[in-house]
Amino acid sequence: MKKTLNVIKIGGNVIDSSEKLHQFLLDFTALPGDKILIHGGGKVATELGLSLGVEAKMVEGRRITDIETLRVVTMVYAGLINKNMVAQLQARGCNAIGLSGADGNVIKAVKRPVKDIDWGFVGDLDAASVSTETLGSLLNAGLVPVLCAITHDGDAQLLNTNADTIASAVAVAMSSLYETALIYCFEKRGVMRDVEDEDSLVAEIRMHEFDTLKNEGVVSGGMIPKLHNAFEAIKSGVAAVYIGKADELPQINGGNFGTRLIQ
Amino acid sequence: MKKTLNVIKIGGNVIDSSEKLHQFLLDFTALPGDKILIHGGGKVATELGLSLGVEAKMVEGRRITDIETLRVVTMVYAGLINKNMVAQLQARGCNAIGLSGADGNVIKAVKRPVKDIDWGFVGDLDAASVSTETLGSLLNAGLVPVLCAITHDGDAQLLNTNADTIASAVAVAMSSLYETALIYCFEKRGVMRDVEDEDSLVAEIRMHEFDTLKNEGVVSGGMIPKLHNAFEAIKSGVAAVYIGKADELPQINGGNFGTRLIQ
Repeated sequence: MKKTLNVIKIGGNVIDSSEKLHQFLLDFTALPGDKILIHGGGKVATELGLSLGVEAKMVEGRRITDIETLRVVTMVYAGLINKNMVAQLQARGCNAIGLSGADGNVIKAVKRPVKDIDWGFVGDLDAASVSTETLGSLLNAGLVPVLCAITHDGDAQLLNTNADTIASAVAVAMSSLYETALIYCFEKRGVMRDVEDEDSLVAEIRMHEFDTLKNEGVVSGGMIPKLHNAFEAIKSGVAAVYIGKADELPQINGGNFGTRLIQ
Repeated sequence: MKKTLNVIKIGGNVIDSSEKLHQFLLDFTALPGDKILIHGGGKVATELGLSLGVEAKMVEGRRITDIETLRVVTMVYAGLINKNMVAQLQARGCNAIGLSGADGNVIKAVKRPVKDIDWGFVGDLDAASVSTETLGSLLNAGLVPVLCAITHDGDAQLLNTNADTIASAVAVAMSSLYETALIYCFEKRGVMRDVEDEDSLVAEIRMHEFDTLKNEGVVSGGMIPKLHNAFEAIKSGVAAVYIGKADELPQINGGNFGTRLIQ
């Protein structure tokens, strides 16, 4: 039987609050078994960019990563956020090791091809981009990889990369070695039947129910691509995907964390 | 017989020149056997500090690391410089892994006690601060650790740390597992009999010759503490210390790199 592995992703809503981050890192440390943490950015990068006069260039509501922006996100994600997070985990007894995709070549992405829009130094990747060998040997050495959203192209170029995509690719790739759960922490408790009602959480969605829930409007807007990607990960070998609120993470041991997506 | 390990330290004079850095990383990659790279900062941190209005506070010509300066050096050393260096090494086929002292708890330092001067968030360390177990398992996994000059105190505090001291502590600690050489790259070819004469390199100094060379004035100024620390490292188990110019690194295989210090 394969060992279990939890791949957990947190974003700005946890990172931007030192209180929430503190609590999350305690809960993450307490989680038994092998685990990998993936973190995105947060408002610190935007603030640093502003202080340095690096103007945010947006297209269709999304940021273009020019060379100046890449410098900023490399400093903030791989430096400031990653190292402070690792130091906090170490203080709690979690033997964390902070990594970009360049470190140990754990994630080799491809610079997004220029079509209508030049997104700049942005990396695209899939499960084949992930070095399961290096991540596996770090886990075997008792280390807990903490991945930031910076990758490289194998040709000395760092790339800004979507943390959700990294989490999914890592979970799919590691499924060859582990029984893997992918856990997305975001601002809501999970998929809600009624957004106004905190108690209307949908505890579990099976793949064949996804279309029905879309038709009923229970799953709508930004939740549709999130769940679509989650079920793609499940099709590619991930045992289960959880979507829920960071502060409810401890409940995952009882199987009561957020919405659980399975085959 | 123990395997050999080269612990190499570079500073601003290499890091600040993209041309020199490029060449150095090629030469470093070509170096056979197990190796660890340690890098200091460079003028990028000073420039970023200026851009952000972080005023350099100096005492006795040395910088105080206040909380704002710590943020800047964490971003630049652990983020910008370390990750770009790792990406460049990966592109050359060297399986580098960039680390701060917090990562895998490889270096746990102590915040310098406040006596006459409060140096701020500066770390002091010795060989006992180094996790030979984690560094050893990374080397055994075929990885090449690239350490920046940021450490932690084990209680969630990052610390700015002297890269020469890290290099020496790592070399001494790893001497329990490896036949270790410690290699300092700096701006000169090594110890020179005549600073005006490029050909007056002193190829080798044995410990008992140190006092004589000091009395003769061949070793003077900033070279005295450098050599003193080097011989301390040798007393503590390091097989040899080399002091030389980064661009002559390839000559180390023929034993002709800089000044070699031995027992």
